[in-house]
Amino acid sequence: MKAFVMKEIGQVGLVEKPMPQPGPLDAVVRTTAALICTSDSHTVKGGIGPRENLTLGHEAVGTVHEVGSEVKDFRRGDRVLVGAITPDWGDLASQNGYPAQSGGPLGGFKFANSKDGVFAEYFHVNEADANLAKIPDTVSDEMAVYCADMLSTGFMGAENGDIPIGGTVAVLAQGPVGLMATAGAKLRGAGLVIGVESVPSRQELARAYGADEIVDFTKEDVVERVLELTQGQGVDTAIEALGANVTFQTAVKITKPGGTISNTGYYGEGEFVNIPRVEWGVGMADKTIATGLCPGGRLRMERLLRILEAKRLDPTQMTTHTFSFDDMERAFEVADKKLEDVVKVLITF
Amino acid sequence: MKAFVMKEIGQVGLVEKPMPQPGPLDAVVRTTAALICTSDSHTVKGGIGPRENLTLGHEAVGTVHEVGSEVKDFRRGDRVLVGAITPDWGDLASQNGYPAQSGGPLGGFKFANSKDGVFAEYFHVNEADANLAKIPDTVSDEMAVYCADMLSTGFMGAENGDIPIGGTVAVLAQGPVGLMATAGAKLRGAGLVIGVESVPSRQELARAYGADEIVDFTKEDVVERVLELTQGQGVDTAIEALGANVTFQTAVKITKPGGTISNTGYYGEGEFVNIPRVEWGVGMADKTIATGLCPGGRLRMERLLRILEAKRLDPTQMTTHTFSFDDMERAFEVADKKLEDVVKVLITF
Amino acid sequence: MKAFVMKEIGQVGLVEKPMPQPGPLDAVVRTTAALICTSDSHTVKGGIGPRENLTLGHEAVGTVHEVGSEVKDFRRGDRVLVGAITPDWGDLASQNGYPAQSGGPLGGFKFANSKDGVFAEYFHVNEADANLAKIPDTVSDEMAVYCADMLSTGFMGAENGDIPIGGTVAVLAQGPVGLMATAGAKLRGAGLVIGVESVPSRQELARAYGADEIVDFTKEDVVERVLELTQGQGVDTAIEALGANVTFQTAVKITKPGGTISNTGYYGEGEFVNIPRVEWGVGMADKTIATGLCPGGRLRMERLLRILEAKRLDPTQMTTHTFSFDDMERAFEVADKKLEDVVKVLITF
Amino acid sequence: MKAFVMKEIGQVGLVEKPMPQPGPLDAVVRTTAALICTSDSHTVKGGIGPRENLTLGHEAVGTVHEVGSEVKDFRRGDRVLVGAITPDWGDLASQNGYPAQSGGPLGGFKFANSKDGVFAEYFHVNEADANLAKIPDTVSDEMAVYCADMLSTGFMGAENGDIPIGGTVAVLAQGPVGLMATAGAKLRGAGLVIGVESVPSRQELARAYGADEIVDFTKEDVVERVLELTQGQGVDTAIEALGANVTFQTAVKITKPGGTISNTGYYGEGEFVNIPRVEWGVGMADKTIATGLCPGGRLRMERLLRILEAKRLDPTQMTTHTFSFDDMERAFEVADKKLEDVVKVLITF
Repeated sequence: MKAFVMKEIGQVGLVEKPMPQPGPLDAVVRTTAALICTSDSHTVKGGIGPRENLTLGHEAVGTVHEVGSEVKDFRRGDRVLVGAITPDWGDLASQNGYPAQSGGPLGGFKFANSKDGVFAEYFHVNEADANLAKIPDTVSDEMAVYCADMLSTGFMGAENGDIPIGGTVAVLAQGPVGLMATAGAKLRGAGLVIGVESVPSRQELARAYGADEIVDFTKEDVVERVLELTQGQGVDTAIEALGANVTFQTAVKITKPGGTISNTGYYGEGEFVNIPRVEWGVGMADKTIATGLCPGGRLRMERLLRILEAKRLDPTQMTTHTFSFDDMERAFEVADKKLEDVVKVLITF
Repeated sequence: MKAFVMKEIGQVGLVEKPMPQPGPLDAVVRTTAALICTSDSHTVKGGIGPRENLTLGHEAVGTVHEVGSEVKDFRRGDRVLVGAITPDWGDLASQNGYPAQSGGPLGGFKFANSKDGVFAEYFHVNEADANLAKIPDTVSDEMAVYCADMLSTGFMGAENGDIPIGGTVAVLAQGPVGLMATAGAKLRGAGLVIGVESVPSRQELARAYGADEIVDFTKEDVVERVLELTQGQGVDTAIEALGANVTFQTAVKITKPGGTISNTGYYGEGEFVNIPRVEWGVGMADKTIATGLCPGGRLRMERLLRILEAKRLDPTQMTTHTFSFDDMERAFEVADKKLEDVVKVLITF
Repeated sequence: MKAFVMKEIGQVGLVEKPMPQPGPLDAVVRTTAALICTSDSHTVKGGIGPRENLTLGHEAVGTVHEVGSEVKDFRRGDRVLVGAITPDWGDLASQNGYPAQSGGPLGGFKFANSKDGVFAEYFHVNEADANLAKIPDTVSDEMAVYCADMLSTGFMGAENGDIPIGGTVAVLAQGPVGLMATAGAKLRGAGLVIGVESVPSRQELARAYGADEIVDFTKEDVVERVLELTQGQGVDTAIEALGANVTFQTAVKITKPGGTISNTGYYGEGEFVNIPRVEWGVGMADKTIATGLCPGGRLRMERLLRILEAKRLDPTQMTTHTFSFDDMERAFEVADKKLEDVVKVLITF
Repeated sequence: MKAFVMKEIGQVGLVEKPMPQPGPLDAVVRTTAALICTSDSHTVKGGIGPRENLTLGHEAVGTVHEVGSEVKDFRRGDRVLVGAITPDWGDLASQNGYPAQSGGPLGGFKFANSKDGVFAEYFHVNEADANLAKIPDTVSDEMAVYCADMLSTGFMGAENGDIPIGGTVAVLAQGPVGLMATAGAKLRGAGLVIGVESVPSRQELARAYGADEIVDFTKEDVVERVLELTQGQGVDTAIEALGANVTFQTAVKITKPGGTISNTGYYGEGEFVNIPRVEWGVGMADKTIATGLCPGGRLRMERLLRILEAKRLDPTQMTTHTFSFDDMERAFEVADKKLEDVVKVLITF
């Protein structure tokens, strides 16, 4: 079968690979749609260290091709969604309520990390009964595939932020995760959602997904403007959706005492992520910093699919580009170099 | 000034009363709009015991008429909303996180209970800085007045229900509190909201406020139908919004193990509210029963007003009738006897 | 091998059974110590319906006899503890945070319920890596076996009760689960623990496990006395540890507004468990009713063993009787008929 | 009356001041015992900026000398404890669940900050009914005074740390707050408490208050040793009780994915508090950072007093020095310069 791999750090390409085989609890899925993620670029640049011919990609849907002998709820032909994170459900971290951390820190993140990813004609899924979800007939593959990571991670930013009904929220950066954090904040009942973003097309998407106000950091001071919009109090919840030290610091500064900084960003460089001491109340202002990794698993995916089924949200507005898997190299280039105002690139198979 | 009172059990009418006077921390508000609540009927029927010439009503907005010497943030002329519950904020129950219970069980419920209510030309508010909220210019009195009790109580039903994003919710009865619980469930990100109701006009409102499915208990078995809609699992959250033993029992039956029954209903009769033993998992199915009284206070009201300001919701669709305060007796009759498909009756001053 | 079974409703006895076999993820454990539980009596009386030659028992420790091909962390000879509840960790209920409810309501309760129990020379454990825990050298079998159900259930009563540091707690009934709820309340930092009990030997144990006050319901009115001990406020948390309608009602009555009634009891009869309407604040006093089934799993067991290793608690004070497995019939009679001031009966193998 | 003040940055001394007067809701307390806190030294060094003749001190007990006209529950002669933090209970931050942040960040911290402190013969308390607590007869002044800050802050470290029963905890630094965090961890039911400390006398106190293991950072690598003690997993909860960047970083490193870093420390210098990026799981390891300021208020103080009344803990083991108020200058020198293995200095009046 064909697979799109990281040949070595900095080098990608389509190669031939053998078909994956399922263990007794597992499944092999035939891919029908996938999305490229910024993390794929991080990985190619060496973010998780060197790899040789590792298949990339962690956002995909497909149809079940084969299941292991112990799989009960799925069979060949089922249309399925797979979360980007596929936990080991019996692991101690899962028992502790953090399945994304099963098998060690970030250990639930297996695709394109500890095993081959989903940019291939077929891919392998561990614990199929627990990590696959059937896609309802009314939800297209092109929509469902957004649940795997974008909805799950973005919404997590909102959920971890402990937003009260009618609360105030700022979402720092309106890339795809930030946009879904914005949508998530609205879904949790925020009364004021402030999107921080400078790119006009993303500002527009932010408004479409629920931002009541846009703050352009190239034109105004974010801290000043957010305080102004909140009568000097700061927001109940600031969601970091970029993974940059400066955005993280802004998040701490604009959060009110007793509020929550909810991190979704991946920090790729530097020894430290820096908390601004004074604005953190010298450690005593009850400003909680919450973090997390994209929640995975069948229950999560079923719940996200229900959001789409109920038409609460249309994530396909983020699909700026569509390529067939044969054009994967060009597709990756567009996503990687952020060409043509790209937001998300959809791959069809 | 004129006040609409419960003269004795079963008897209401307009009477003359002296103007209220503010203590040092208090305010007197000139009423501009009010809503009649089912609780007013309960009270007149003796639900809280005998009273003599007690002014009724607990849902109102107005303008500040006079403030006490220690009040800092409000002054004469401010357009203000007052929660139905006006807690004593220093009380031990408030310090414990339950201000509605300050001064004893349900003690935050002062209006038309431990003191005169709001169906009067003027009414008194304790701890004005903590219990008043300014109404934004873009929100009308007719909208804002719904925050006092309807939004606060209905949303509480959703909040106490601990609804996960994409979760399944059933709201039992679509009176005004149930309708706002339905809206609240949607605001918390439910993926499936089931409204249980038999009256066509209320079914229609339920759909408008976010119910994805309607179950008519006069035509189908609620337990069977809800299980069917949830693939046999039951809902994550069942919200009781009627205050009847039978609805409460249904709520327990349709909730999945690990789910929450969230009560908003007032139970007016009987020695017991009955938990069905077997469907409660003989006490061991992790089905939590949460309850509460309408949250009050300035912060709550400010947050609810923000929901209206952001146009997340238009509660005035529930206003089926409008009367001037002079016609209060007829207004009360319509509400009390549930005439003319009444949902909520607005009183203008 | 020998097994102690329920032959039919009302009939028990030792019989010969074939050895259990492990599936690929499972283990077979050779039993070294077990405890008899009140639930065993319920089962024999028909509490879960008719059964034929079902092996009884769910509290046991032993050594690993055999493991399946996929088991990684355990091998023959390991001294192990097994929780009374052995969840399916990939199930949707487990993913939802309620592993005890995996496979349906109370579905994690497999031993002596949906499969043979532990009163046998050998017993089978599903998902061995996730459901076994190694016993530290410093903890004896006779101590460790108390973790399986007594510590796990009793402590759960305290944990679900959301006890604040310095809070007030009442534990209704001081049987073994109640005693461990008492110990659990102290372990969570309660400032006042009130044990309700009439049997002198159990009162004494209650004091030893942390009860600051004892209320004897045969000599005084429990509601009155608890209110007196809490300056009229009621307790932050009332833990029901008997499973009787009357005790449950008392629990609701003695809990303060904003407090929690935490249920550990199994209700074996009647159509309803009754909430006293008025003392529940007519549904509006913010009195939460929490419930649960004994948490199981390796992480839980490891944490409970750590409590014993750190000598926070000695559960063997509850062992009033010890029998060898050959005398199982007499042992069961003592426990079942509550002879000789029995608290817990230990079985050695 | 006599008061011990910060005359200017770096200068302290006893001076004469006029008696404080209570407003209608307030009280004036005659001091009977007080404790010196490290924060007093921070303040004198300019930690909160310049002040002129500001009375120092925030940990005290006494007897009520005078109450305002609206005070209901206290009267002259009552033995009372006052929390170091005396919130404004009607403030929006209090309504939001963070009374310590009322009136702005850290605004509940009034004593020796926004008004005169307690190192005086008399001191003023705002909202007396909500901020005073009666001391039970069985609790001495010398014990009760530890509740004001030491127990409240130290226990908060444990409470915010979300410690599971049987969980693993490390407390970094065993000064008085760290010692009470150690005691708090044990009170919450930790199964393993690791105290990090190098001073032998403090190590000994740590063991007395519940540390199961001591790690001496001058002799071993803290991260390595804690990982070893937790089988390579890291702790469920790390409590920072020093307020130093290096300790904070260690706390992040030794916490398991899904665990909590609970901060009690005051960070006095530097632009940033630094989160180690990689060990924080590049922002994705579900390691929450919780913070807070000493909780105050009557309910909190009553609960802490109950802990002392029930003899769960004897804080006076920390009293290494006692001086009369007349010797305040020498007392302050001992505390400030950390002479003679000082832990806490008690002042009698």
